[in-house]
Amino acid sequence: MKKRILQIHLLTCLFLCLQLPIFAQSKVEQWDRFEVSFKHTPKENGFATVTLTATFSTKDTTQTVAGFYDGNNNFVVRFMPQKIGIWNFTTHSTIPELNNKKGSFECVKATGSNHGPVKVSNIYHFKYADGKDYFPFGTTAYAWTHMANGVQEMTLKTLKNAGFNKIRMGVFPKNYDLVKEEPEVYPYLVKEVKKGPSGNDLKVWDYTQFNPVFFQKLEKRIDDLRALGIEADLILFHPYDKGRWGFDEMPMEANLRYISYLTARLASFRNVWWSLANEYDYVKSKSDADWNTLIKAVVQNDPYRHLCSIHGSTAKYFEYWKPELTHASIQDEAPVMHLGAASIVRNIYNKPIIYDEVGYEGNLKQRWGRYSGEEMNHLIWMGLIGGTYVTHGESYSFKDNRDTIFWAKGGEFKGSSWKRIAFVRKIMEETGPIEPADVSRDYITTTNGKGSYIIYFGKDINESWAFNLPAKNSNFEKPKKGNRYKVEIIDTWDMSIQPVPATFEISDVNDYRMYDKENRRIRLPLKPYIALRITEISQ
Amino acid sequence: MKKRILQIHLLTCLFLCLQLPIFAQSKVEQWDRFEVSFKHTPKENGFATVTLTATFSTKDTTQTVAGFYDGNNNFVVRFMPQKIGIWNFTTHSTIPELNNKKGSFECVKATGSNHGPVKVSNIYHFKYADGKDYFPFGTTAYAWTHMANGVQEMTLKTLKNAGFNKIRMGVFPKNYDLVKEEPEVYPYLVKEVKKGPSGNDLKVWDYTQFNPVFFQKLEKRIDDLRALGIEADLILFHPYDKGRWGFDEMPMEANLRYISYLTARLASFRNVWWSLANEYDYVKSKSDADWNTLIKAVVQNDPYRHLCSIHGSTAKYFEYWKPELTHASIQDEAPVMHLGAASIVRNIYNKPIIYDEVGYEGNLKQRWGRYSGEEMNHLIWMGLIGGTYVTHGESYSFKDNRDTIFWAKGGEFKGSSWKRIAFVRKIMEETGPIEPADVSRDYITTTNGKGSYIIYFGKDINESWAFNLPAKNSNFEKPKKGNRYKVEIIDTWDMSIQPVPATFEISDVNDYRMYDKENRRIRLPLKPYIALRITEISQ
Repeated sequence: MKKRILQIHLLTCLFLCLQLPIFAQSKVEQWDRFEVSFKHTPKENGFATVTLTATFSTKDTTQTVAGFYDGNNNFVVRFMPQKIGIWNFTTHSTIPELNNKKGSFECVKATGSNHGPVKVSNIYHFKYADGKDYFPFGTTAYAWTHMANGVQEMTLKTLKNAGFNKIRMGVFPKNYDLVKEEPEVYPYLVKEVKKGPSGNDLKVWDYTQFNPVFFQKLEKRIDDLRALGIEADLILFHPYDKGRWGFDEMPMEANLRYISYLTARLASFRNVWWSLANEYDYVKSKSDADWNTLIKAVVQNDPYRHLCSIHGSTAKYFEYWKPELTHASIQDEAPVMHLGAASIVRNIYNKPIIYDEVGYEGNLKQRWGRYSGEEMNHLIWMGLIGGTYVTHGESYSFKDNRDTIFWAKGGEFKGSSWKRIAFVRKIMEETGPIEPADVSRDYITTTNGKGSYIIYFGKDINESWAFNLPAKNSNFEKPKKGNRYKVEIIDTWDMSIQPVPATFEISDVNDYRMYDKENRRIRLPLKPYIALRITEISQ
Repeated sequence: MKKRILQIHLLTCLFLCLQLPIFAQSKVEQWDRFEVSFKHTPKENGFATVTLTATFSTKDTTQTVAGFYDGNNNFVVRFMPQKIGIWNFTTHSTIPELNNKKGSFECVKATGSNHGPVKVSNIYHFKYADGKDYFPFGTTAYAWTHMANGVQEMTLKTLKNAGFNKIRMGVFPKNYDLVKEEPEVYPYLVKEVKKGPSGNDLKVWDYTQFNPVFFQKLEKRIDDLRALGIEADLILFHPYDKGRWGFDEMPMEANLRYISYLTARLASFRNVWWSLANEYDYVKSKSDADWNTLIKAVVQNDPYRHLCSIHGSTAKYFEYWKPELTHASIQDEAPVMHLGAASIVRNIYNKPIIYDEVGYEGNLKQRWGRYSGEEMNHLIWMGLIGGTYVTHGESYSFKDNRDTIFWAKGGEFKGSSWKRIAFVRKIMEETGPIEPADVSRDYITTTNGKGSYIIYFGKDINESWAFNLPAKNSNFEKPKKGNRYKVEIIDTWDMSIQPVPATFEISDVNDYRMYDKENRRIRLPLKPYIALRITEISQ
């Protein structure tokens, strides 16, 4: 018996001496997460004193990524392989137990709903890494991961039954008029507890010691979203703190350490986007120069170059032309309230435009939180016909402040616009990215460049419409006399698609337009929010 | 007699040996032009081989400016003094006859209509150097200085009787559908004449030899404009050449030499603005990088930092965020066709926005050249209520191509919108710069921040209007309960201002608005294009 124990001890010792990774997969899908961890008992603060990186190589590609301390003497390296094949890795650290650890895994082809991370495509649009079009139909639930676990589970169930594929959510908890919940866990360890001005407890954080549990819980939720095909548009900073925890006014050194830690943990999550801030200009402790420093830090720490932007208050436009920012994430209703404005913004930035806040469907007193469902749905379509994207949000508050308001806390939707998202998303996925067909002249007609057009009449109620197309076709080949088309009437609110029982054929260009050769008209429902999809019929 | 002649010869010799300036003023108004010239017979090409600069000093200010060769052995230095007092100058050249010439003059206070050059003021607006507000009410006559002299004189007479204070005009002649005139003089000397593809004469220019007469004529016209209080928004390059002269496709070296020469001649003209190009993206020989090089060259060669921008084709937005560009000079009708869009563009760039081309009043077949006068006037007001500026243009073509079309050739106005410019300009000069009062929420109300508001109803015909103001007031102090106001009804088309015989007093904020305490309404004319001016009455 003693001998047996000795043998086991020897094996354990051998194992520890070789310092093999405690855990690692042998096969990983492309764009999935490879993770390997090592045991080491740090003498001091493992977050601040231990540096760990790992170099991953396959064929002609080598990438070095940062590892991180996950508490409990656990040091972790995560990696998102972008190429299939055998990957080898070696760790680097000044700590012998973490240095020069080697291993390998096979990266295999993605399967099922794994299409990889979302990237910018064709200047104004998005695609998954595998080439599949991605159209951002997002909603907003800033603090859902800081609510009670039941609410979080309810949120996931709600999202599962809706059509969204993106959600805006904060890393830090939120302290705001209608959101007062204290989170269960915090991102940092408490250094001391002081008495605040009103006798309340004020936690003083140790910004050099992260709380791994906080981040593990966040990661679980990001993985839950991934399983639902939803991108996590992760907000790194926001102003909704107001002295309660102080995460909006950490020293710059702490901000940068937080970014290093967060990116080391999360960059390998394929469904993560970096949103440097919500309403960045309301964060009074940070200047534009600070934001540029933080943006650069995120980009430098992210080996995969996830989508990255920053969001301001109403009509506050950051310098979205900066190369670090992959797209513009804008709060402003002006671009979608009237025709023609949405596409101006994209013409200026030459990047994808997401109007991540144009107001919310809801019943709040605040004017940004009391749109009808019809208005919210209309604004989403107003974005689309400008070749841009609009994020949904819902802020219904019944009962009292303990009610969940989806915009802040998640929970259940109570409105009506969310039900239309799957419908409009399906139309976009069928049609492909659309562009204004005749920029600054025709404000309601978009083209996919391959013979399909989407026209949106907005709030106008038209008895009929004379079949006609613009002679221009964005930068694509122009339509030709004799082209034949079918038409579908889309009721964007009632979610119906009605084919028109006729075929139309365009004649010569007449004053920049091409009309049906018999000048035929289409009867339209006497309703607002009607769109048309026009599709060329192959000869 | 012989002795007398000898004496004169000796004096002449002495004079030449001392090389005193041939001509120089002793007194110059602030922002007027000081000019001094020197005789020297260049051995070779005086444009290419002689370098001349001069340093001007007063009290704590020293500026070095470039001189230029004006032909006929004449070397000229021009300077625009910006400070009053005694200025001393010294020339620098490798040519002894041009080197170390010294002189001085007194700069005296500006008088009359001399307000100095126009500068950016308060982010989005303009002021003259003396502090007087400047509101750009421009028109367009691209090639007016290349027309026959009679047409040029007619143009000046037309401008004298209109309300414009800016004109867009090209340095180079224009070859376009409706503009075929051959200029009388060219900016360069001819090296040789070749036969073109259709047997036509093709001039080959010597890009190292400028034609001073060309520039002298241009300068005369800029001075003529100055006398009328009109800024010359001078277009340095344009694409309307199409192989006729080749000024759109000179080698980069020639472009840079042209900029050096032009700025040496013209930077001292206080009413000059630099517009690097019209429709820059249609100039196929130049890349964006080339444009940035040329923009930088202009700014580096301009000691006074005149206003500087560049203009693209429809909906083509240059990188107006570049610090070299003082304002955005945009071709796009989208920002003024619907409410709310004009101010988005200013919120993005945080610079003054001039929509220098939104289409023209006229009768052309082209859709950009057939607006009604009402539409042109309306678009100018649409710009103003966005806190931006719109340039007028007129493209009426009667008879045939020999008819003058103001947009291209100058001559006489034939439309109706030009008659409204003095009216709207007077309103703006009385009211001061205006800003959207409640950005992205109220699209028709602007504030001057000092108790005055301008509301524009556009094409809407309203029977009456309930007196109310937004509770917000841009970044200015908010209106207070009890404030009292008078109202004037402005008919922007009929050019009438009708005071409303009542005083209104605002009550508490009610859902973001402050209504008259008695909820009184104002009867409005049943017409489109109605505006209101609301002015606080001092207690």
